[in-house]
Amino acid sequence: MYNAKAYSAASATSPLASSTIPRRDPAERDVQLDIIFCGICHSDLHYVRDEWNSVMPAVYPCVPGHEIIGRVTKVGSAVTKFKPGDLAGVGCMVDSDHSCPACQSGLEQYCSNMILTYGSPDKHLGGVTYGGYSEGIVVDERFVLRVPSNLDPAGAAPLLCAGITTYSPMRHWNVAKGKKVGIVGIGGLGHMGIKFAHAFGAHVVVFTTSPGKKEDALRLGADEVVISRNADEMNKHAGSFDFILDTVSANHNINEYINLLSRDGNITLVGAPEKPLDVSAFSLIFGRRSLSGSAIGGIAETQEMLDFCGEHKITSDVEVIAIQQVNEAYERLLKSDVKYRFCIDMASLKSE
Amino acid sequence: MYNAKAYSAASATSPLASSTIPRRDPAERDVQLDIIFCGICHSDLHYVRDEWNSVMPAVYPCVPGHEIIGRVTKVGSAVTKFKPGDLAGVGCMVDSDHSCPACQSGLEQYCSNMILTYGSPDKHLGGVTYGGYSEGIVVDERFVLRVPSNLDPAGAAPLLCAGITTYSPMRHWNVAKGKKVGIVGIGGLGHMGIKFAHAFGAHVVVFTTSPGKKEDALRLGADEVVISRNADEMNKHAGSFDFILDTVSANHNINEYINLLSRDGNITLVGAPEKPLDVSAFSLIFGRRSLSGSAIGGIAETQEMLDFCGEHKITSDVEVIAIQQVNEAYERLLKSDVKYRFCIDMASLKSE
Repeated sequence: MYNAKAYSAASATSPLASSTIPRRDPAERDVQLDIIFCGICHSDLHYVRDEWNSVMPAVYPCVPGHEIIGRVTKVGSAVTKFKPGDLAGVGCMVDSDHSCPACQSGLEQYCSNMILTYGSPDKHLGGVTYGGYSEGIVVDERFVLRVPSNLDPAGAAPLLCAGITTYSPMRHWNVAKGKKVGIVGIGGLGHMGIKFAHAFGAHVVVFTTSPGKKEDALRLGADEVVISRNADEMNKHAGSFDFILDTVSANHNINEYINLLSRDGNITLVGAPEKPLDVSAFSLIFGRRSLSGSAIGGIAETQEMLDFCGEHKITSDVEVIAIQQVNEAYERLLKSDVKYRFCIDMASLKSE
Repeated sequence: MYNAKAYSAASATSPLASSTIPRRDPAERDVQLDIIFCGICHSDLHYVRDEWNSVMPAVYPCVPGHEIIGRVTKVGSAVTKFKPGDLAGVGCMVDSDHSCPACQSGLEQYCSNMILTYGSPDKHLGGVTYGGYSEGIVVDERFVLRVPSNLDPAGAAPLLCAGITTYSPMRHWNVAKGKKVGIVGIGGLGHMGIKFAHAFGAHVVVFTTSPGKKEDALRLGADEVVISRNADEMNKHAGSFDFILDTVSANHNINEYINLLSRDGNITLVGAPEKPLDVSAFSLIFGRRSLSGSAIGGIAETQEMLDFCGEHKITSDVEVIAIQQVNEAYERLLKSDVKYRFCIDMASLKSE
């Protein structure tokens, strides 16, 4: 066991501040990373402020961060996939039971014994796991990803959560050339959704409440942009979408989007509004439409996504900040004042 | 054109009463039926009382009825599938455009030009179509079904709506041996759902609020019965269902059922609550679950379902009534006081 610098929150109302956390010495199957960049996910903010208390109560002190890019510094004796000096990534999970049907299907994210990168019970050191707002991390190699060397590491960090969260449901629901795909919201998730849907060859329509985001949506890969507050614009697309990815976590009228689905069309939620959504049964029945949810993606699929990003030169649009700016970044995140993901340059932690 | 006896409602607040309606003379492709039995669907009541005004405003006078079994009395010169004397059925639809992608896929129920058996524009006579609470009907042979002769015709009538409405989604979502299937509600739809799920070889769990229905659910084919008001009983089944058919049109807590689905499990609504359902995004996201709707079934699948019923000797449990009892039957329907479907013996109309 050794100490590592980190930024942690002491309570739901405390700002994140410099601290020290324990990390385990790498065991046989472990990979030790020196963290270079860590993206800021809206989940970090929800968790730190205990806003998901009803489903996932926060444990303090907490160290968030699950969009981790690092350089391998040490590997255990049984590690085969990594060696010191490799660029590697860690996402939302650091372990699972490896034996349940979900794990056997490569869907560790649905394993009921899955260990989140932060806030889950830590079987090695006790307490809970600590995330990527830290100088280093030690993770079972089965949860460490290879990161293509041609990608900018800061822009690659958000792929580990925002990337896989949008990639996985589009693969699951067969987004491809010839399909009409909607992306609701242009934020950390939405802007990745646009890039992937475009790369898959789909006809991409972006829905936003902000006319000011239109140009940017087109630049990101949208074929069309619809201002969702304009009922006429919305109605033109009634019954025409094969798939819609809904990335909005604010409360919104989901039926407006369900009505845009074609027969057998699907809308998948990846943002999680706190309040229940009002869903009209009629909208689903007339057209055999479906409303789904999707959580990140399995490890194999995360690797596939990273490789796909390497081939297609896809990264997240990031604003790189120092760790000392993290509390300010959270406030800006609440105002959607970022294009489109904050990413912490962890070199800034060394001066603490 | 000729006149036919019928029972019709003059307004949303009028009882159904004896009347006369026009029927067209059979054209080339038409089949004329002498109606023997007509089931009473809850939709009949909703429509007659204009309770679906916001999505499907009623036109008066209206003649409901879309669970029709009749004897063929006359066929047009181009009719190939039927001859006078045949037993035949008509369900919720009497025409569609035959050219759209839905029709081409044998899913006429999702054709945007589909003509309902009652209340849709009648292109032959003007006005709207009139349903099966009538002594006869004339229908394009493409919307007339063959009814296996070994089935009791009164019990077969509800197959045309309640039967196909429950059969189709279970086929679509691959209900089969080895699958765990839930049926929510034991009414006209639910009791058919139990019979089909059992016939498909699934492990069938029935959810009901009424302990008094337990014995009957087991008789109908349930392997287990859960009293849905008992949270402990519900929790025992958390995360375990491949598919749940929700037949309840009263407002209810859908999240309790979503939480019972396994990973990638689906719950399909076939009852349509008037008010929107409160759906928790978290319940869908953690498990990649989906919530769908389904409307009746296509004509080819309706024929497949009838043939399946012939092979497996499946009919609806009906209480046969005279047409003169229809208003009283509606009141009892509101109290779920029927096991499990009223079916009108149309011979009773002859005395009017």
